[in-house]
Amino acid sequence: MQKNRGILTVVSGFSGAGKGTIMKELLLSYPDRYALSISATTRDPRPYERDGVEYFFKTEEEFRQMIADNELIEYAQYVGHYYGTPRDYVERQLSAGKDVILEIEIQGALKIREACPDAILLFITPPSAAELGRRLFGRGTETEEVIRSRLTRALSEADGVDAYDYLVVNDVVEDCVHEVHGIIQNEHSRMHRNLERIAMLQEELREFVSA
Amino acid sequence: MQKNRGILTVVSGFSGAGKGTIMKELLLSYPDRYALSISATTRDPRPYERDGVEYFFKTEEEFRQMIADNELIEYAQYVGHYYGTPRDYVERQLSAGKDVILEIEIQGALKIREACPDAILLFITPPSAAELGRRLFGRGTETEEVIRSRLTRALSEADGVDAYDYLVVNDVVEDCVHEVHGIIQNEHSRMHRNLERIAMLQEELREFVSA
Repeated sequence: MQKNRGILTVVSGFSGAGKGTIMKELLLSYPDRYALSISATTRDPRPYERDGVEYFFKTEEEFRQMIADNELIEYAQYVGHYYGTPRDYVERQLSAGKDVILEIEIQGALKIREACPDAILLFITPPSAAELGRRLFGRGTETEEVIRSRLTRALSEADGVDAYDYLVVNDVVEDCVHEVHGIIQNEHSRMHRNLERIAMLQEELREFVSA
Repeated sequence: MQKNRGILTVVSGFSGAGKGTIMKELLLSYPDRYALSISATTRDPRPYERDGVEYFFKTEEEFRQMIADNELIEYAQYVGHYYGTPRDYVERQLSAGKDVILEIEIQGALKIREACPDAILLFITPPSAAELGRRLFGRGTETEEVIRSRLTRALSEADGVDAYDYLVVNDVVEDCVHEVHGIIQNEHSRMHRNLERIAMLQEELREFVSA
């Protein structure tokens, strides 16, 4: 079987939906299958962060140059710093046949959809609003302000969720990892990703007929 | 978790792709999950065939009445007999939460797509044209006429295949059954099948905010 090009998967979810854990487990379970997209940022590295591992650390000038050279699939500014997704890294992983996971919030996800129509968008949610509430309200130690801002954010996230391709319920972590893996792997069987294979088959069938 | 409505899955494939075996194994492996659609036909039952199991056996008058009453999702005539898919049986299984499998050739599949835009279309293929050739040419005992008609049919099947949603390669039967099962189950996580769940979540989040 020919080596397929990887699939870019965008993962978003309510804060508290546990998507960080899901992604970590997915990569630990299938290290040869997946690559995590690495963001570029202009913020300073924290002591434990290494360039090219957690982030690509850039000066503001370098980052602006990347924007000008169309080297970012998407970017945004957040509390005074730039964050973006370098196209080259993602492209190299996809070409090598790796499925690339990109964890990003909803606005970024919609920009990826524009730039890469072939990407699939997954939204991870807790099993119920009650459960989401419990996760948002925390252990009762948060201020009302924090809770209110989380709720407002969750509501705006929920409003954009129908732009996603899949809704994945995170009830039991292992089940959720299994489901995310299944969804991405089955996407490789989508007809529009196999048109070359079909064309080859048709070609060979025609040779049989004319033989 | 609420009980989801079942999904109608149309399965086609090259003759010799082994789709009969795949379907049989799928139903044996997950008897509570799947139901096989039962066709109506005007041809006579064979000795071992039971009404309502292999087929719903109908007189030509009854069948024409079903057509007139729009009781068939699709129908066709084949060597002097009618064959069709009764809507009621499929609908009852889907409502009960069963995923319904409908094995049908490409013309029928396209009619199902029209009538049930929510259905998913799977096309099963041998791993290569060479392998397809071996299955089409058989053990060398078939007449040239038989082989030529099989080839021509395969070619016309291949021409319509890009209307399908998934291309499933049947190399090892168990792997293929596993893949078909995974594809159908993951389709339950498609966003457009979960809009009600999203609406409920939004509603409950709004209640949190206004509380």
